Amino acid sequence: MPRLKIGAIGYGYWGPNLIRNFIELPETELYGVADLDQARLNTVQERYPQVQLFTKDYRGFFERGLDAVVVATPPHTHHRIVRECLENGLHVLVEKPLTLTSSDALDLVQTAERHGRVLMVGHTFEYNPAVRALKQMIDSGELGEIQYIDAVRVSLGLFNAHLNVIWDLAPHDISILLHLLGTMPESVAAQGTSCVQDGVEDVAYVTLRFPNNVLAHMRLSWLDPSKIRRITVVGSKKMVIYDDVENQEKIKVYDKGVTAIRHTDTFGEFNFAYHYGDIVSPYIRFEEPLRVECKHFVECILEHKRPLTDGYNGLRVVEILEAAQKSLRNGGGLHAYTPTVHRNGHHPLVFQPA
Amino acid sequence: MPRLKIGAIGYGYWGPNLIRNFIELPETELYGVADLDQARLNTVQERYPQVQLFTKDYRGFFERGLDAVVVATPPHTHHRIVRECLENGLHVLVEKPLTLTSSDALDLVQTAERHGRVLMVGHTFEYNPAVRALKQMIDSGELGEIQYIDAVRVSLGLFNAHLNVIWDLAPHDISILLHLLGTMPESVAAQGTSCVQDGVEDVAYVTLRFPNNVLAHMRLSWLDPSKIRRITVVGSKKMVIYDDVENQEKIKVYDKGVTAIRHTDTFGEFNFAYHYGDIVSPYIRFEEPLRVECKHFVECILEHKRPLTDGYNGLRVVEILEAAQKSLRNGGGLHAYTPTVHRNGHHPLVFQPA
Amino acid sequence: MPRLKIGAIGYGYWGPNLIRNFIELPETELYGVADLDQARLNTVQERYPQVQLFTKDYRGFFERGLDAVVVATPPHTHHRIVRECLENGLHVLVEKPLTLTSSDALDLVQTAERHGRVLMVGHTFEYNPAVRALKQMIDSGELGEIQYIDAVRVSLGLFNAHLNVIWDLAPHDISILLHLLGTMPESVAAQGTSCVQDGVEDVAYVTLRFPNNVLAHMRLSWLDPSKIRRITVVGSKKMVIYDDVENQEKIKVYDKGVTAIRHTDTFGEFNFAYHYGDIVSPYIRFEEPLRVECKHFVECILEHKRPLTDGYNGLRVVEILEAAQKSLRNGGGLHAYTPTVHRNGHHPLVFQPA
Amino acid sequence: MPRLKIGAIGYGYWGPNLIRNFIELPETELYGVADLDQARLNTVQERYPQVQLFTKDYRGFFERGLDAVVVATPPHTHHRIVRECLENGLHVLVEKPLTLTSSDALDLVQTAERHGRVLMVGHTFEYNPAVRALKQMIDSGELGEIQYIDAVRVSLGLFNAHLNVIWDLAPHDISILLHLLGTMPESVAAQGTSCVQDGVEDVAYVTLRFPNNVLAHMRLSWLDPSKIRRITVVGSKKMVIYDDVENQEKIKVYDKGVTAIRHTDTFGEFNFAYHYGDIVSPYIRFEEPLRVECKHFVECILEHKRPLTDGYNGLRVVEILEAAQKSLRNGGGLHAYTPTVHRNGHHPLVFQPA
Repeated sequence: MPRLKIGAIGYGYWGPNLIRNFIELPETELYGVADLDQARLNTVQERYPQVQLFTKDYRGFFERGLDAVVVATPPHTHHRIVRECLENGLHVLVEKPLTLTSSDALDLVQTAERHGRVLMVGHTFEYNPAVRALKQMIDSGELGEIQYIDAVRVSLGLFNAHLNVIWDLAPHDISILLHLLGTMPESVAAQGTSCVQDGVEDVAYVTLRFPNNVLAHMRLSWLDPSKIRRITVVGSKKMVIYDDVENQEKIKVYDKGVTAIRHTDTFGEFNFAYHYGDIVSPYIRFEEPLRVECKHFVECILEHKRPLTDGYNGLRVVEILEAAQKSLRNGGGLHAYTPTVHRNGHHPLVFQPA
Repeated sequence: MPRLKIGAIGYGYWGPNLIRNFIELPETELYGVADLDQARLNTVQERYPQVQLFTKDYRGFFERGLDAVVVATPPHTHHRIVRECLENGLHVLVEKPLTLTSSDALDLVQTAERHGRVLMVGHTFEYNPAVRALKQMIDSGELGEIQYIDAVRVSLGLFNAHLNVIWDLAPHDISILLHLLGTMPESVAAQGTSCVQDGVEDVAYVTLRFPNNVLAHMRLSWLDPSKIRRITVVGSKKMVIYDDVENQEKIKVYDKGVTAIRHTDTFGEFNFAYHYGDIVSPYIRFEEPLRVECKHFVECILEHKRPLTDGYNGLRVVEILEAAQKSLRNGGGLHAYTPTVHRNGHHPLVFQPA
Repeated sequence: MPRLKIGAIGYGYWGPNLIRNFIELPETELYGVADLDQARLNTVQERYPQVQLFTKDYRGFFERGLDAVVVATPPHTHHRIVRECLENGLHVLVEKPLTLTSSDALDLVQTAERHGRVLMVGHTFEYNPAVRALKQMIDSGELGEIQYIDAVRVSLGLFNAHLNVIWDLAPHDISILLHLLGTMPESVAAQGTSCVQDGVEDVAYVTLRFPNNVLAHMRLSWLDPSKIRRITVVGSKKMVIYDDVENQEKIKVYDKGVTAIRHTDTFGEFNFAYHYGDIVSPYIRFEEPLRVECKHFVECILEHKRPLTDGYNGLRVVEILEAAQKSLRNGGGLHAYTPTVHRNGHHPLVFQPA
Repeated sequence: MPRLKIGAIGYGYWGPNLIRNFIELPETELYGVADLDQARLNTVQERYPQVQLFTKDYRGFFERGLDAVVVATPPHTHHRIVRECLENGLHVLVEKPLTLTSSDALDLVQTAERHGRVLMVGHTFEYNPAVRALKQMIDSGELGEIQYIDAVRVSLGLFNAHLNVIWDLAPHDISILLHLLGTMPESVAAQGTSCVQDGVEDVAYVTLRFPNNVLAHMRLSWLDPSKIRRITVVGSKKMVIYDDVENQEKIKVYDKGVTAIRHTDTFGEFNFAYHYGDIVSPYIRFEEPLRVECKHFVECILEHKRPLTDGYNGLRVVEILEAAQKSLRNGGGLHAYTPTVHRNGHHPLVFQPA
């Protein structure tokens, strides 16, 4: 079987990881790399002399019989580049966030459908074995009813001159939260501050309220001395910490909690029953999440399947980012989430089987 | 010199710690303990046979020539008990929070002033050597300008059937924040959820906005699998983590950060200059904070001094708790902080030298 | 029922902990404390005004109708004091090491038997709930066959001017090892060095070889920047780390290991089969080990039972310390362990049911 | 300037890392790879289609005008392969251990000298920035006189069917110790046990005694549930922990210790003065140690320099491994180290400037 011919657009921070994977996958041939910066292309050539270079213009890809492209350019260019690639018949894997507005995101979703192409967003964490194990635990009922989720993603990070920390870091946690809970939030609130650059928040706190009284909270910072990537899921039966910085124990399940028990003899008074049990760190076979993602992209192309992180998935994340941005500008109160798009007459937030 | 005669009211969760300290201090004699529960008083008698027991009624203290009382009863009883003790001429050390309303707190402040008695609130962390070291670092300018502070105080904690987690845990972090920054916040916002008992939040997130664009955020939970007590202070020069759960390295100073540098040749564009330096954990001589607090109470009585954590200090904390409670009930938007009380014609929030 | 009258000899480093426990136990009355140092006795009086003080001479105890004494004096005094107490009809709990020679230890064992008194050694770790949980795991076969045990006990510790680090720290690990394995080692080897004081080793490494090819190794140091108290037990099925410095996860069971599989087709060649499974930290209800120990002492007196850590137990530990000391002086080679004493005609090293 | 033509022999566990580095270095061209296993060579071809493949026989390299080879084959093949490459005029970088006997190691040293070729051993840790920082601290006197060094290198590791854990893991720690102390040990003692395969120790403890009463101890295991790579250096002024598993704080300097002070008024009695100061983790700019090593090899070839880890360095490590092996076979006593080789009439253990 001939290998899929892949082109890569953008060889900045994340591009090299994508390219390495498509070079190593047996089903794909990395045909060429496009970037505005000649120095970066020189690096490509040294490492991979077999790859074609396209300086300045990725449009050279359109006449070479490619099957697909992977786009890892700055987010404000996503809409334009991805649209053009889809219209030229290419399947597209694009980095997060899909776009900077939900209307642009919807436009890409519709363009992909019109041209019958795969549109996939690089929400890597949904391909992370630890996140998958966590999802299974929740779905199996082992944790009981989910009560709240706390997510922390901070470090002394790479500052972005234009996009704030919510647009940069929150896509990861939002895609994880939607994946775990399988539903959209009803409202979003955000607080933040700009320490280093006026007008570009580098520290933010975002609260999401989901149906069934489930609260989620994200702490996001480019300005923190330690690197923390930690999600705490509290259920009525058990609690879980997923710590992505840990090597051996990424997930720990704590069999502990508390229950309020109404006294029978007094009106409205409670006792609290605590339980403390074992802590279990299940063995999770590691596979590089990006590799799983790239293989999934290939599989969706070859088998005409809808990706787990398809355009709607990307759209949902962008809608929440927009709502957070609005709350941030308005003092941080809760903004009821108003979905702007629909899919096949259904509310896009009702997750459907692919 | 005769020793101060001290009475203790309340031998529940915290009372035993206070009592142990006043028994060990050479300047004080723990005369008696009052509690509603006879079983608790029996425990006192076994350990300290020399101490008098007062079942049901602490008013027995008023005719025994005591100098002072320490009050560790449930918060809703503070106003009544403390007021009565002050009016009977006793100096009072009372656990946090001082009261449940700022008007009650102000009443206690004024009662203490009227009777010329010491009123001190048990904001223990202001007597913690690590907090003091952190305060000195900030005041010395070593950290540069403070940009934001993140505080986390979570564990599988003791649930309270009536007071929510903000009233229970936030007094610690609020007193630390006011101590470190030396000023009141301009606005307060809070989000929370009730997982175990309807109507009593067990998880909450509180944002404080201080003058000079300094943001502080508190994460508070009784429902978390790990015990975290961690404050991150980010300054323009250095960053600090104060981890109260650590034994040997409670404070770590990170000489790292980032600066935005305006390009000279392009309009409005920035470069980011990162610096990375040593991490230093200064040696801090440990002394039990509660012991420092108890000694300070004795010293204030003997030398007619105003305590570091005086009634005004307690009042300021209660005012912020009230503002957080209002925001919590109103969807979590920012509430401009409106001070309800004044001291000697001055805004109480302007901290004054004692 | 009248309470047991207890006397305490020695109020230095460890004595206060013993005394606090016997004051809190309902079955005992701490009658008096003897110490050579008047300042220490003053501290006793301040905390426990009900307790009698015996300056200089513990022999005052002998005419006061005491039931038992707890001895926490320097090790070189143990033999003389314990012997005298036993001869005066008192039950004795003595700190580790029981004595400085195995002949002295045997003498105490025999004296206790002659006078029908309980002789118990304060090997606290055998009363530690984590050690007990570990013992149960081993005995249940969950770990498979024990292959080796590594023990580390280091910190910047209290130096002793006369006894080296083996005599000071190893009693803990030796008593744990004998308890876990239920047998004596066949040989002992020790290496060490004296960094601070000539002739008194402050750093040592001790190897014990047990039957069935089980090796145990101890790393002991008073001169280490971190405090480590960690025992690794490697079995053919699972591995365990017992970390006594941890709060929440003192014991972790790792379901992982490796097996050598002989190739069927080649002569003498092996494949290695690795398995990786969950990590489980079982919930262990904490109870202060010293409190468990003190209660056990009381129970043995009241019910005429032989203590878990009886004189023979103390003797076995002293014999291994002696063997380690000999190896240390002779270049660290293995010394076949030669038992010097017997019990009822049986080899003392064969553990017998009490 | 033309690039150095490099050949690689062995594409097993470590080979791929070497090859990646020589492909990325601008001064070198990775000409070809030789391996016995065709499947491995296929992997090379997929990743690096520009590289020539040599199945079965690396002797094909000898007629292609190569400058140098890197050898990452099993240790028992090192002597034969390296010798043949040196005799064919190639510079050689070979993985550790250099050989399995000191006489073979000496033979390679002499062969390299005879042919005027660079012979370098891949003792990577000597090129590790953290080890270099530690070496500088020691040499500067900041730590005072070195008193002892404890090294731990354990994990559930890759078992070797023929070489024991000392030959596999100890070369790292021995090369670090010799580098840090700048001298050879006077004696070596080793204890070990074989848990998984009869006759091949998978757990071992090695003691080295250096001049000036400096003791070093290594704990080595393929059979441990956690991965530990930790070296503790205790000096008379300060102590250091180098933890290679840590990301951000690989080196921590503890300004603490203890001094014995002789009483002036009593004969032979000591007081102990403890000091406790800051803990500092110096910033160390990370560079992949293997990359530093590969660049050093290139530089030594181009500038006719003697490598830091030259053949003598490799020989010294092999001599200590041999001594450890002898002690292991003889019950673990100390073996006075008897150097078997000399260099230019000088004792090879006296380190000389290159």
